[in-house]
Amino acid sequence: MKQHNFSAGPCILPESVFKEASQAVLDLNKTGLSVLEISHRSKGFVEIMEKARSLALEHLKLDANEYAILFLQGGASYQFLMAAYNLLESKAAYLDTGTWSAKAIKEAKLLGEVEVLASSKDQNYNYIPKYYTVPSNLDYFHCTSNNTIFGTQIKDFPKSDIPVVCDMSSDIFSREIDFSYFDVIYAGAQKNMGPAGATMVAVKKESLGKVTRAIPSMLSYQSMIDKDSMFNTPPVFSVYVSMLTLSWLKEQGGVAAIEKKNQEKANLIYSEIDRNPLFEGFAAKEDRSMMNATFTLKNEDLKSKFDQYTKEARINGINGHRSVGGYRASMYNALPLKSVQVLVDVMKELERKA
Amino acid sequence: MKQHNFSAGPCILPESVFKEASQAVLDLNKTGLSVLEISHRSKGFVEIMEKARSLALEHLKLDANEYAILFLQGGASYQFLMAAYNLLESKAAYLDTGTWSAKAIKEAKLLGEVEVLASSKDQNYNYIPKYYTVPSNLDYFHCTSNNTIFGTQIKDFPKSDIPVVCDMSSDIFSREIDFSYFDVIYAGAQKNMGPAGATMVAVKKESLGKVTRAIPSMLSYQSMIDKDSMFNTPPVFSVYVSMLTLSWLKEQGGVAAIEKKNQEKANLIYSEIDRNPLFEGFAAKEDRSMMNATFTLKNEDLKSKFDQYTKEARINGINGHRSVGGYRASMYNALPLKSVQVLVDVMKELERKA
Repeated sequence: MKQHNFSAGPCILPESVFKEASQAVLDLNKTGLSVLEISHRSKGFVEIMEKARSLALEHLKLDANEYAILFLQGGASYQFLMAAYNLLESKAAYLDTGTWSAKAIKEAKLLGEVEVLASSKDQNYNYIPKYYTVPSNLDYFHCTSNNTIFGTQIKDFPKSDIPVVCDMSSDIFSREIDFSYFDVIYAGAQKNMGPAGATMVAVKKESLGKVTRAIPSMLSYQSMIDKDSMFNTPPVFSVYVSMLTLSWLKEQGGVAAIEKKNQEKANLIYSEIDRNPLFEGFAAKEDRSMMNATFTLKNEDLKSKFDQYTKEARINGINGHRSVGGYRASMYNALPLKSVQVLVDVMKELERKA
Repeated sequence: MKQHNFSAGPCILPESVFKEASQAVLDLNKTGLSVLEISHRSKGFVEIMEKARSLALEHLKLDANEYAILFLQGGASYQFLMAAYNLLESKAAYLDTGTWSAKAIKEAKLLGEVEVLASSKDQNYNYIPKYYTVPSNLDYFHCTSNNTIFGTQIKDFPKSDIPVVCDMSSDIFSREIDFSYFDVIYAGAQKNMGPAGATMVAVKKESLGKVTRAIPSMLSYQSMIDKDSMFNTPPVFSVYVSMLTLSWLKEQGGVAAIEKKNQEKANLIYSEIDRNPLFEGFAAKEDRSMMNATFTLKNEDLKSKFDQYTKEARINGINGHRSVGGYRASMYNALPLKSVQVLVDVMKELERKA
């Protein structure tokens, strides 16, 4: 019997994707070969990679002439370094909205100066700073669209005359944004796109070639673009499952349709957090993430009872990150509304029996 | 019906591994969760990672007090850079035995001086240079144990008073060597260990901490050791399948037992290459790889016929790399002797009918 999986990532993927991937591990499209044993240079895999790229462009409504889609390894943590390597000539602007922003800032500082425009660290990152201006004379502006750990999300991006780089690991493909606002978007696959081990990067081609340093091959967006993400062996299976998940998203009606469902799930859980006298939300209401709802029990004595109820309901992965404590319900694209309803029912049950 | 898969990598893995991995994509050990949706911080995955690490140490006969095993992303190409970042203070010695050695040299040159001790480029890398001395005053000596593209393999490693770094991507776990001779061993998983997307690194701990540069987190062996390969989200599925493959290797009797089988397969194909008047081997006989046999048709006019016969026999992946041409039969650990016999039979058939 399946669990209701609220894990923050790696996380739930569509059931149909699990089934198709499981079959492909035995035999990919009746080729007599497992997807794990095909050459990345084979026609079969080249088609998978191209389909993944074209689906990503389609979902992001980006123009293939302007943007390249890459599927790389190393996760967002690697992009903290790679983005700076490719774009940071002297000084860049960063918005500090949480643990991952702070790590991105740390790596960028190895390569140039960083101006932190604003930070919500003073309130343990429970809100998104708003009253700041992006300078027009820096190399780029970097932000994190959704803060998985703290459950906050940028709703309106600031006006910027300089290139914008965004870590969208935990909310890519979950809501409609004008993605052409960004010059570089990167996202670890393991939330809305696929399993761990692949990282999608969308790069506006004209933003490259402006730094003077020598860039190591494995850190160069241009090298990766020139080789269609096959500078070296790509993470074949993770790209394959990402392609399946992006196909599933298209069948669901795309980003606009999934955003409606995500909004419905978020409304359901946040309404209960606000209504139920036993709980309180962590993030500032106006900045609440549609992906990760963070909340705590007002009375910690109820913790063991609540944990027991959630376990009985086969709810998985709702422990909060150690930086916040309490609970976190991650509601990525593939999580059904029904799972959120089960969690809400357990919250109500606790209220009745407490 | 399965194919006989001679792909150079990603490549064949054991049939039992495909079955277990396929099942785990649906439900990992009856947890009600797919291996693709579990948290990398979950008990289930931490156990998988620990088992993969301890099996690697066991197969390499390395002491856990002296060596750390890491499972990273990025492949050997990333290690070209990472090894140099961590160990190259002023000057290092490299042996140039092929495309991958040359790429390793290129990346190292971004960080310090490189002395190429010897190269077989003059003969299109069809042999392993032997008459060179490893200087005792350089930071380390780097070599490639097996050259996938050219089908050559180092049989005897030179005496070295300095740390030795070795790219063993295409022959790790295939033969018994004194692995404690090396300070850093790295290997992309996608040959003898698992699917693409994971890279194993064995690092002698005392070799670290000797360079003065600031090392970015994602390029620091020490950061990865400190976090047990979980500095950021690891490539969960690739590590899982690597663990299954290393378990399978243990069931087969370990490296010593698989080496005997590999020798048998290599003897079978090389005997036929030498006997059959239609074919000739590419690599110098004394340097022939036990993993990748490279050979050509003396008469190119027979190519379409040979290609037709191999296709009919369901032989996959024997086209040679474009740098060498002809054919390459990669015979990694999981390839059965029977597949080699099928290929040899086709070579004999061509001789009869040519």
